[in-house]
Amino acid sequence: MLRVLLNGCNGKMGQVVSRVAKTYDDIKVVAGVDLNTTQNFDYPVYSNPFQIKEEFDVIIDFSLPEATLTILEFAKATKKPVVIATTGFTSEQKEKIIKAATEIPVFWSANMSLGVNLVAELIQKAYRTLGSRFDIEIIEKHHNQKIDAPSGTALMLADAINEVANNSYEYIYDRHTRRKKRSQNEIGIFSVRGGTIVGEHSVIFAGPDEIIEIKHTALSKEIFANGAIKAAMFIAGKSAGIYNMKDLINSM
Amino acid sequence: MLRVLLNGCNGKMGQVVSRVAKTYDDIKVVAGVDLNTTQNFDYPVYSNPFQIKEEFDVIIDFSLPEATLTILEFAKATKKPVVIATTGFTSEQKEKIIKAATEIPVFWSANMSLGVNLVAELIQKAYRTLGSRFDIEIIEKHHNQKIDAPSGTALMLADAINEVANNSYEYIYDRHTRRKKRSQNEIGIFSVRGGTIVGEHSVIFAGPDEIIEIKHTALSKEIFANGAIKAAMFIAGKSAGIYNMKDLINSM
Amino acid sequence: MLRVLLNGCNGKMGQVVSRVAKTYDDIKVVAGVDLNTTQNFDYPVYSNPFQIKEEFDVIIDFSLPEATLTILEFAKATKKPVVIATTGFTSEQKEKIIKAATEIPVFWSANMSLGVNLVAELIQKAYRTLGSRFDIEIIEKHHNQKIDAPSGTALMLADAINEVANNSYEYIYDRHTRRKKRSQNEIGIFSVRGGTIVGEHSVIFAGPDEIIEIKHTALSKEIFANGAIKAAMFIAGKSAGIYNMKDLINSM
Amino acid sequence: MLRVLLNGCNGKMGQVVSRVAKTYDDIKVVAGVDLNTTQNFDYPVYSNPFQIKEEFDVIIDFSLPEATLTILEFAKATKKPVVIATTGFTSEQKEKIIKAATEIPVFWSANMSLGVNLVAELIQKAYRTLGSRFDIEIIEKHHNQKIDAPSGTALMLADAINEVANNSYEYIYDRHTRRKKRSQNEIGIFSVRGGTIVGEHSVIFAGPDEIIEIKHTALSKEIFANGAIKAAMFIAGKSAGIYNMKDLINSM
Repeated sequence: MLRVLLNGCNGKMGQVVSRVAKTYDDIKVVAGVDLNTTQNFDYPVYSNPFQIKEEFDVIIDFSLPEATLTILEFAKATKKPVVIATTGFTSEQKEKIIKAATEIPVFWSANMSLGVNLVAELIQKAYRTLGSRFDIEIIEKHHNQKIDAPSGTALMLADAINEVANNSYEYIYDRHTRRKKRSQNEIGIFSVRGGTIVGEHSVIFAGPDEIIEIKHTALSKEIFANGAIKAAMFIAGKSAGIYNMKDLINSM
Repeated sequence: MLRVLLNGCNGKMGQVVSRVAKTYDDIKVVAGVDLNTTQNFDYPVYSNPFQIKEEFDVIIDFSLPEATLTILEFAKATKKPVVIATTGFTSEQKEKIIKAATEIPVFWSANMSLGVNLVAELIQKAYRTLGSRFDIEIIEKHHNQKIDAPSGTALMLADAINEVANNSYEYIYDRHTRRKKRSQNEIGIFSVRGGTIVGEHSVIFAGPDEIIEIKHTALSKEIFANGAIKAAMFIAGKSAGIYNMKDLINSM
Repeated sequence: MLRVLLNGCNGKMGQVVSRVAKTYDDIKVVAGVDLNTTQNFDYPVYSNPFQIKEEFDVIIDFSLPEATLTILEFAKATKKPVVIATTGFTSEQKEKIIKAATEIPVFWSANMSLGVNLVAELIQKAYRTLGSRFDIEIIEKHHNQKIDAPSGTALMLADAINEVANNSYEYIYDRHTRRKKRSQNEIGIFSVRGGTIVGEHSVIFAGPDEIIEIKHTALSKEIFANGAIKAAMFIAGKSAGIYNMKDLINSM
Repeated sequence: MLRVLLNGCNGKMGQVVSRVAKTYDDIKVVAGVDLNTTQNFDYPVYSNPFQIKEEFDVIIDFSLPEATLTILEFAKATKKPVVIATTGFTSEQKEKIIKAATEIPVFWSANMSLGVNLVAELIQKAYRTLGSRFDIEIIEKHHNQKIDAPSGTALMLADAINEVANNSYEYIYDRHTRRKKRSQNEIGIFSVRGGTIVGEHSVIFAGPDEIIEIKHTALSKEIFANGAIKAAMFIAGKSAGIYNMKDLINSM
């Protein structure tokens, strides 16, 4: 039985993780950390991680950048592995995470969904085969309450292409103001917003007379909780270092 | 047998019309007008319409705005009906077309595809039922040689919504520069460009926990030729006035 | 404030209606009927409708065919309107519903989603325009626990086409055993099953070089609860007769 | 300049290869073989390959099984490499092809499209990651004149999964006659037929709350001609043996 400390336990995703964790036999949330210390589940909630009395094996962090940095300090002090599912870090904060990984195992991924990370690998393989003869475009769709555009995941997918393409692509978000043919070294990224769409990402490779489309659809936020739990199981017992979904996928 | 005079007969679409017309039993191109007077088909080609000797019943115009205005003068002089499939008119030119329609029958549509015009009607019906509780977004896809964005058809579809919505919608082409929730009175319009995609238009109505998508896919430019030929058959024998695809659809 | 008696209140959909109704200001479930009389919400539950003491304005029925017939008797006795969202009736049971509608207002629809019913109207309009020159195919997708195939909604959509096509179409569920070209008077209906897909229905009109697709995606079962609640508001105060989603849509 | 002998040069695909080959600088069809010896292009056509006088480097075969076997004999006699793009072989015929490959290089693929073969590799990778927790379904769409169902390509894709899944999947073509939940070891394969659809293959992985879809769309038959030409360039100069699109893709 893997014992989890959940940072950000009363946030939206923290609550989803709490609920989803109950459906696993071999994992259990034993304590939570949150500024809001209301006890919503069957584990105690602390505002300060250093006050925790429960024994635990791994930390799952679904919080905000500053809270992540605090829990990282606690993780280093207690030599525990951390799964970071929080997003929106500054470059400076990112450096601190990378530095922490020299002391403890850190699992860090911009998107905790197994499927999205698989898509990132598939499009890299597709790019390697199709090369620059195929034009690449990305469409993402989310609900009408989402503030940022494009989604972090759409950028993660575009970056995955650029990683295997020597950064030769620039990202285009609007063709409306230009009156010219598409250049080969652009990736169009478009953000559809509407209703309660949970999340959809589609990568299109359009070439001479054929199109390949690789598409991920999320039906609920639970996939991110499932991914974080699988990451926790994966990282427990590992040595210090940075791990990500690619490592988890390749271990399966 | 309906006899057609084809304006712009040696342009890309003029050639498609010439080829497609041969597959119909009850229609025949008897003469063409084009600055390039090469005879590519089995009918004579004139640079000046006023020199035409052949008898004809209706004019199909797939040319450029200026050539359209010239052929309109000829149509008025000969009292013949005209199908205008040319696009890109200025406001001034549009007024001339509308004025010509007081003397002769003019069939005028921004998109000659039967399917696209049906989609325009379907989305108007969808809007009337779903109303502003559903967010509307349009995605269009075309080949990588297309210069303008969005496509004229995407704008025609957005305008079709605005026509039944008291012009309450503004069009958004880029969400990348904004950091705010989607407003109810926007229609996102996105232009994907890649490979040799002929043309795809998708209108999305995303509401609370359900999505309705109405999508048109063109597999070849022949659909526009077919539409123009059907329009020619429809307008032959009509009295002076403006007609469009909606009239043709409702007559079927 | 519209007071609702909910038949089948402890079934899966009964619970969804109970939860969704709380989000409306102008409607309230005041009592439930179910063989399982556990009180899961803030209203009393009865096994026998004739024992209900609460005042109510309209009945919503999300139960099983036999329970529907019982609640219909009660509705006739109390002269209350009923919304029937139950499915799976025999021809004999259907006749009883139709007969009951001579005494009381009955709202009856095979699918309570506003969107699906709109799609039914859109495909009828599409058929009237495109006619038999376009081949019609239906693909539906549901989760891997669904027992029946095709879905009742897929059949409802096919029937909607047949209704305006003089029943000229037959339904084909498998092309694997045949070695012949598609005939014009068939509608292919295919049932994809996988994962936790809530429900997707796509109607394809494929013609010469163009395709029109009209697609409905359900993101949660709440859309059926919302539809039933809107139907309850619509039917309250109506005179005896059969009403359906088409009437509701046309009243909007 | 690679000199090609084209077997089946007057068939539908033979003509497409002839036309497409003209757009390449480094390849040229120098002679054709066909029962119909009409000369439609700028190369001579023979009914019997053994009468050919032209020098050539490689054979492309887009014909019928029996004609393929004849050209194989000729290839063995002349020690020339062959690209086999013909389909519909019996087991006995397949054995002859495999045996011929002990003497000469043979490129043999059920589908000559680069994109479709890439999709086959992508779904193998997806299966290896997602495993049996995700349900797999295949939808293929073709024009209404296609006689067989499912398409050879749909079967090729299903077989690609079975190849990495220890043949644990059975194929299901109709769920209409069954009243039971989907079993984990089935792949549903559905054949949509309509209009002039060139060819679309979609493989769906539907898991708990997420869906991954990998889709190939062909816009014209030219992609198969392009694939055969690329295969001819690849196989020229190779030693005896069987080669396929996977080898070609991995060589890129």
